[in-house]
Amino acid sequence: MADSRFRGVIPPVVTPLTADRQFDEKSFENNVNRMIEAGVDGLFFLGSTGEVAFSTPSRRREIIEAAVRVVNGRVPVLAGVVDMQTEQMIEHGLQAKELGVDAIVATAPFYALSSVKEDEASFRALHEAVDLPLFAYDLPVCVHKKLGVDMLMRLANDGVLAGVKDSSGDDVNFRYLVRANKAAGSPLSVLTGHEVVVDGAYMSGADGSVPGLGNVDARSYVEQWQAAQAGDWDKVREIQDRLAGLMRIAMVAKATAGFGVGVGGFKTALMLLGVIETNQMPRPVEALEGADVEAVRQILVESGLL
Amino acid sequence: MADSRFRGVIPPVVTPLTADRQFDEKSFENNVNRMIEAGVDGLFFLGSTGEVAFSTPSRRREIIEAAVRVVNGRVPVLAGVVDMQTEQMIEHGLQAKELGVDAIVATAPFYALSSVKEDEASFRALHEAVDLPLFAYDLPVCVHKKLGVDMLMRLANDGVLAGVKDSSGDDVNFRYLVRANKAAGSPLSVLTGHEVVVDGAYMSGADGSVPGLGNVDARSYVEQWQAAQAGDWDKVREIQDRLAGLMRIAMVAKATAGFGVGVGGFKTALMLLGVIETNQMPRPVEALEGADVEAVRQILVESGLL
Amino acid sequence: MADSRFRGVIPPVVTPLTADRQFDEKSFENNVNRMIEAGVDGLFFLGSTGEVAFSTPSRRREIIEAAVRVVNGRVPVLAGVVDMQTEQMIEHGLQAKELGVDAIVATAPFYALSSVKEDEASFRALHEAVDLPLFAYDLPVCVHKKLGVDMLMRLANDGVLAGVKDSSGDDVNFRYLVRANKAAGSPLSVLTGHEVVVDGAYMSGADGSVPGLGNVDARSYVEQWQAAQAGDWDKVREIQDRLAGLMRIAMVAKATAGFGVGVGGFKTALMLLGVIETNQMPRPVEALEGADVEAVRQILVESGLL
Amino acid sequence: MADSRFRGVIPPVVTPLTADRQFDEKSFENNVNRMIEAGVDGLFFLGSTGEVAFSTPSRRREIIEAAVRVVNGRVPVLAGVVDMQTEQMIEHGLQAKELGVDAIVATAPFYALSSVKEDEASFRALHEAVDLPLFAYDLPVCVHKKLGVDMLMRLANDGVLAGVKDSSGDDVNFRYLVRANKAAGSPLSVLTGHEVVVDGAYMSGADGSVPGLGNVDARSYVEQWQAAQAGDWDKVREIQDRLAGLMRIAMVAKATAGFGVGVGGFKTALMLLGVIETNQMPRPVEALEGADVEAVRQILVESGLL
Repeated sequence: MADSRFRGVIPPVVTPLTADRQFDEKSFENNVNRMIEAGVDGLFFLGSTGEVAFSTPSRRREIIEAAVRVVNGRVPVLAGVVDMQTEQMIEHGLQAKELGVDAIVATAPFYALSSVKEDEASFRALHEAVDLPLFAYDLPVCVHKKLGVDMLMRLANDGVLAGVKDSSGDDVNFRYLVRANKAAGSPLSVLTGHEVVVDGAYMSGADGSVPGLGNVDARSYVEQWQAAQAGDWDKVREIQDRLAGLMRIAMVAKATAGFGVGVGGFKTALMLLGVIETNQMPRPVEALEGADVEAVRQILVESGLL
Repeated sequence: MADSRFRGVIPPVVTPLTADRQFDEKSFENNVNRMIEAGVDGLFFLGSTGEVAFSTPSRRREIIEAAVRVVNGRVPVLAGVVDMQTEQMIEHGLQAKELGVDAIVATAPFYALSSVKEDEASFRALHEAVDLPLFAYDLPVCVHKKLGVDMLMRLANDGVLAGVKDSSGDDVNFRYLVRANKAAGSPLSVLTGHEVVVDGAYMSGADGSVPGLGNVDARSYVEQWQAAQAGDWDKVREIQDRLAGLMRIAMVAKATAGFGVGVGGFKTALMLLGVIETNQMPRPVEALEGADVEAVRQILVESGLL
Repeated sequence: MADSRFRGVIPPVVTPLTADRQFDEKSFENNVNRMIEAGVDGLFFLGSTGEVAFSTPSRRREIIEAAVRVVNGRVPVLAGVVDMQTEQMIEHGLQAKELGVDAIVATAPFYALSSVKEDEASFRALHEAVDLPLFAYDLPVCVHKKLGVDMLMRLANDGVLAGVKDSSGDDVNFRYLVRANKAAGSPLSVLTGHEVVVDGAYMSGADGSVPGLGNVDARSYVEQWQAAQAGDWDKVREIQDRLAGLMRIAMVAKATAGFGVGVGGFKTALMLLGVIETNQMPRPVEALEGADVEAVRQILVESGLL
Repeated sequence: MADSRFRGVIPPVVTPLTADRQFDEKSFENNVNRMIEAGVDGLFFLGSTGEVAFSTPSRRREIIEAAVRVVNGRVPVLAGVVDMQTEQMIEHGLQAKELGVDAIVATAPFYALSSVKEDEASFRALHEAVDLPLFAYDLPVCVHKKLGVDMLMRLANDGVLAGVKDSSGDDVNFRYLVRANKAAGSPLSVLTGHEVVVDGAYMSGADGSVPGLGNVDARSYVEQWQAAQAGDWDKVREIQDRLAGLMRIAMVAKATAGFGVGVGGFKTALMLLGVIETNQMPRPVEALEGADVEAVRQILVESGLL
């Protein structure tokens, strides 16, 4: 059976920066505490939203140390160990374990081309080296490959994987993964990473969600999860429709693209809400400014958060 | 407001062939009647499932003539006019109108590379030339582009489009299309083409579905739609989970790929159920044989249909 | 051995239109004659450049009839039979044969997803049905798949294919195709479709080229081919560098994209040179206008053609 | 004018490993000395071929220290600083500079999605932080984006870039990059990374090549460059055709895919030639074995190297 610690709403935590791009621990603490108080079931640090791709080894250490200290056992701590290939992921995983996280999250290796054989070997080597529950992170938009249900279930049945964070945007395969997992006795915790269709994922039988938008409105995701557990699907839908409106904060910026628009929108909203100090972004990305900030503010107002 | 004729379950009808690859009108009639008796709200001929890509102009005529004759006004008839570019789509559309269909369905032009400007112009030219409700068919896996919400809503607001059949596999954009459509007074009928996540699409507010699997089990999709209309979401889910199991008929074949596996699976199931005579496929695709047929049969048995 | 009729410079001929988008046979005749007088070794009608994707069956007939009449045996006539799937390609091929072309050119089937098995079966069925030399057209940017060397050589060795027109942009595989063809006794005529790197293709051992830019400056491509045959590689390069400059006519337009920029540039240049009457484009594409026409004119002036 | 130190043949050096996957410095030294003795014009360490994606920060240090020591000023040393985003690239670049390399080589950032704006900012930030000649590495198969000519020339004209290593497989854009570079006074050294079409790249005006196959047969690439400089194009072609045959060592393995086949083939050949001790590969990739090794051996024999 899937580890019951890893169910429900587990937002990927943004990494606030100071104006000069240092880690802003005070803002980080505010944001983490606000989400725990909203009732989240876990927190995922150093995900794509948490700037894992932008973080040097020392920055990764800083973030995890702060995470473990601030969370202080109130909810499980998951940490991303994303890197290009296996050896670096193992180094990050060993550091994370030493610092006290509860689980690690890894993608398939990337940059160098590989096949399912190497991808599977990478998850196995990582699990063998780092004695912690391991989540596979399915994120084709960044990793440029989709993790297949067959491979995931082999790894699940062999005790290598404890769960999957699915940000693949492939709702058809998501349903088949949930289905295969149930047939195997539910070794995996299967979580969706898509903020605006969590309702559909819950209909498919997801064990929870990892919504970046949870940084801004964790309470709604928590209420939605509780409604789903209670079978109140009309409420699940209604909350989802509202959150789809709010999610536009991660789509409106015009002066940048991709990560800058999405995470830039989250940080800008958190700054406008007074949770974090600046909406600074890591190099080479620039923070939202001017009309882009106003567009985010307008959506917060429309959504009743400001 | 969206045309109320185009709501609910509107399966894309397969095109049965004889062993020597002629149109099998008797089998076609059986299949159409079986679906209408199951309560479908419309039928879509010459979709991707209906072999539009494989059909010469004369074959297209044969199919539409038979469709109009057999359906005989019991439900609305939609006809695909898919082709590489605008002029051919207009020719197909004029023929379809002359033969008495109720609506036509078109993709963006393909093969020659274009931008949103040309795609939008193509829908406008087609609508101007063919005086019938026009559905946009969003099918990136075949057309190699995604139809954007902005373009679709411009066309909807100008009265060019009556609806969208979304087979894009992009549930996030699907929700935003539904949302934008509602905000505009619902000019579009927004239908999902993904058989195994119709429940999620209904949660998002879809006006109906276009399930290829409806050829095999139309009754379940009809019951699911009725449950969704009644707000009985547990039933919607339960039916969906069952249908996801059945949909494996369109995934199990090993000796071919793509269209041959999917539509080949539907035809094989219909043959095994005694609805159509052969599971013949159009050139260059071959019909499922041997172990692949057995795999389909096994799923039908497991699903209680055989 | 490859059919010696299909070597050298074989431009894909543009299809001039009148202002109201009818076939402009007079302009067509001027353009064809101008290229034959420049010394081309063959002409390819109804290629991507020749608007095959935009042409209804009757338009295809018009173009081929005019081509056979105007060329009048002076050089071989190749005709594209591109369409979504096999049956339509066979219909086009039979019509082309009846009208007297010397060879036909086909892509793999597209729109419906297939595997190498179906692609290979499609070429075999087409060759069996249409008794003419058959060229495979490798154009991943339109067809969304790459034709593999192994499949092409199986078809070559079985006498199915007479040649390959490679517009794949994959110079590495092009060299391996040429190499495999030589090892098999040169059953294929291997032609490159990339106007600005014909020199590299000739270094790799290509049997000729199919340059869209040949509509505008056939003489230079003919001189380049003759220089390559004579081993005068410095001249081959020098001509190529000049043609790379001229090819910018197919890249400068801002108001459209893809086909509209490329073929729109060729047509605009031919209009400015007085070869054809208008630069009209097929629906849904619009002809270049204003600053885009001026940009083409400027390049013609810089290149010494105007 | 492009820095004259970075012209000619600059192979990307493989990183030999011991059976237990430690850095094999003795084998590394043999391989480096063999290439310098063959007359190469520079050596590129920690490229994709050199396992940059698989190397932890300490492994990177080991390799660069050994490189600088062994090369000992005989040819320029280029070092890859590839990583997901800017900050890590800067850390690698500062380390490389401290260790004494002559130039660094960087891709655009990857994993997190960005636009040209961020890509350009990343190169600028890296150049500002690390005072060494900077090469842009264009490798869409790994980085999943193509570096545009416009951006590269802006960076060249501003003194940010000293050169480009083009492994994009896009010979059309390569020619336009060379052309734009010449028009700007040749600020860049433009090198091709495609071993089997170096002849075409030299025809286009490349300033040199970065052939992975140079590890196995550096002498032939050196002779080819000299022939190109002398205008002996028949010799350039003849050498290229021979090298295309040899390059099959990087394509024949069946038991793996991608990097494992390519670099695995190079290492296996070097092992069979007695240059390095093992053909071990970094985790999660496995070394070629059995029939795959025999296939490489056979090609070496056919090519006269064994």
